[in-house]
Amino acid sequence: MNDLMTGSAHLDEKGENLIIIDQTLLPNRRVLLTINTAEALYEAIASLRVRGAPAIGIAAAYGIYVVSRAWEKESYASFCDKFGRTKEYINSSRPTAVNLSAALDRMEQVVLNNGRVEPVQLLPLLKAEAEKIHSEDIEMCRAISEYGLTLVKDGDGILTHCNAGPLATSKYGTGLGTLFLGRERGYEFHVWCDETRPLLQGARLTAYELYNAGIDVTLICDNMASYFMKQGKINAVFVGCDRVAANGDTANKIGTSGAAVLAKYYGIPFYVFCPSSTIDFSCVTGADISIEFRSPDEIKTMFFKEPSAPEGVKCCNPAFDVTDGELITAIVTERGVCRPPYEKSLYEMFKK
Amino acid sequence: MNDLMTGSAHLDEKGENLIIIDQTLLPNRRVLLTINTAEALYEAIASLRVRGAPAIGIAAAYGIYVVSRAWEKESYASFCDKFGRTKEYINSSRPTAVNLSAALDRMEQVVLNNGRVEPVQLLPLLKAEAEKIHSEDIEMCRAISEYGLTLVKDGDGILTHCNAGPLATSKYGTGLGTLFLGRERGYEFHVWCDETRPLLQGARLTAYELYNAGIDVTLICDNMASYFMKQGKINAVFVGCDRVAANGDTANKIGTSGAAVLAKYYGIPFYVFCPSSTIDFSCVTGADISIEFRSPDEIKTMFFKEPSAPEGVKCCNPAFDVTDGELITAIVTERGVCRPPYEKSLYEMFKK
Repeated sequence: MNDLMTGSAHLDEKGENLIIIDQTLLPNRRVLLTINTAEALYEAIASLRVRGAPAIGIAAAYGIYVVSRAWEKESYASFCDKFGRTKEYINSSRPTAVNLSAALDRMEQVVLNNGRVEPVQLLPLLKAEAEKIHSEDIEMCRAISEYGLTLVKDGDGILTHCNAGPLATSKYGTGLGTLFLGRERGYEFHVWCDETRPLLQGARLTAYELYNAGIDVTLICDNMASYFMKQGKINAVFVGCDRVAANGDTANKIGTSGAAVLAKYYGIPFYVFCPSSTIDFSCVTGADISIEFRSPDEIKTMFFKEPSAPEGVKCCNPAFDVTDGELITAIVTERGVCRPPYEKSLYEMFKK
Repeated sequence: MNDLMTGSAHLDEKGENLIIIDQTLLPNRRVLLTINTAEALYEAIASLRVRGAPAIGIAAAYGIYVVSRAWEKESYASFCDKFGRTKEYINSSRPTAVNLSAALDRMEQVVLNNGRVEPVQLLPLLKAEAEKIHSEDIEMCRAISEYGLTLVKDGDGILTHCNAGPLATSKYGTGLGTLFLGRERGYEFHVWCDETRPLLQGARLTAYELYNAGIDVTLICDNMASYFMKQGKINAVFVGCDRVAANGDTANKIGTSGAAVLAKYYGIPFYVFCPSSTIDFSCVTGADISIEFRSPDEIKTMFFKEPSAPEGVKCCNPAFDVTDGELITAIVTERGVCRPPYEKSLYEMFKK
């Protein structure tokens, strides 16, 4: 099964369950999970079985549709109440990516806009909205990837951080989409793939996706990026994003801001691949973006045979950081490439 | 047993064997190894059972003494020949740190300077030279730590990378010595400890050493340094070094140059703690320093329950990088603090 075509979240054939690839088990085991309760969906998002800002949005949309099927015989008022509470519950599973709340808001809007119909008639509308969120993501990824290809040339060395490929989205991906689309067109990129501690999304997911697509990929530790930049191996840095503020400040996987500082020092362009759904104009700057802190176990024990440090040693595990807009060469969206100053370019492309 | 007092390499009570702590097993098991062959010494250095530039030098000095005891009944010419070949063999175990070859050169000089005595009389001289290398290191660490204390104040947040503590040296350490000495004098530092992928020397050794000394230490992933610098948590960066060129370019554990670039961007002083034995005036710049590449297995499998990436994915594993002298606020030596331009300050302190 080609994850590049399906992405990581979809409905089963009968349209009754959400199916996701359990990303925590990759690359060693490819396990599909069947989800049909709010609790299972919450757990899958919180524990990163499904991850990547767009993929979380798609999974949440399909997921809340699947869950709401159980209320088809309820009154509209009851359906609406349960839908709202379930939405809030699922939305609380992770705080940083805007796509989760945006997708859930769109789904709820379908309910709110159709107060005159019975829940049984609402369900097809909800299913259609989830499918629309999914198909829009596929179109978005392709458009973003086309714009990305205008920024690089055949043979370029590209540094990636974390995973913004098909597993994180639907098809092609955002940060990696240019590489997959370029591959289809005969480009030969040399990709340097940060392993992305603590959860190793780069090693487990990005290297897995690129390698399986036949793209030249070399896995490195996060702290090696400076070495390879200095060696002249890297012509551009490609990352996805979880939330972008109105001024271009970008929340993405921890370590992104460090890669951006390095790119600036070495004179390498740093590109953020950003579906417009990820831009949150309610955040004026990055200071308005809530950063998720996760368990120290992810650093000290999760993937290791033995703990990496004595039990009593404190750990701090911010899952994201904010990259200053001024470090970002361009923000690549499905509508085009935005350049600094982002207050102006993002506003003009999406708000005007 | 207090490793802070003994360091990681010493002779046994009878003076017949080299004893090292197997640093690859820390922090979960504290195992002492008894070494009395050149092959075992080579293996211990190459596989990082003893590591840290000064500790490697001390272990090599004691080690070649222990090995040479077997030749006490040989002729001087035969002793000298075996000594030379053993020295070259041990010296080939790791290329980057200068201390290894410097310590072995000193030991060989004892042999070459005493051609009129019998090997049986050479042995006490060799033992004394190894003990001198060890005791000089202890004095050096204390002096470096005293100078380090002039650069920080009580309550400062300090970022560390890799391990330059007692395990890497003899007592106190170089990069960490200021923290241990400060602790003895009632300073309360807040240490942010990079785990230091791929071999986790920060988590396994630095966090272990600091935690056992009662110093406030928080373990983070390497890619989190930018986040905590931006938060204002870090007032200075402390690192050791493996070889320093005449212009101040510094080879140290992979990731050091990235931390230095970040420190520059965030306006945080970046200090290299450097025994004069680590300065190699034969290297004009960092480009003259040979960088060791190690096995991809260190990245993909060594500490993990399962491989982090598919088997066919390429890995590149440079063990060191070179930090440009211009990124270094000061190089702290046992004779004092050198400031840029280092061509001038290092020359004046050590060559004039």
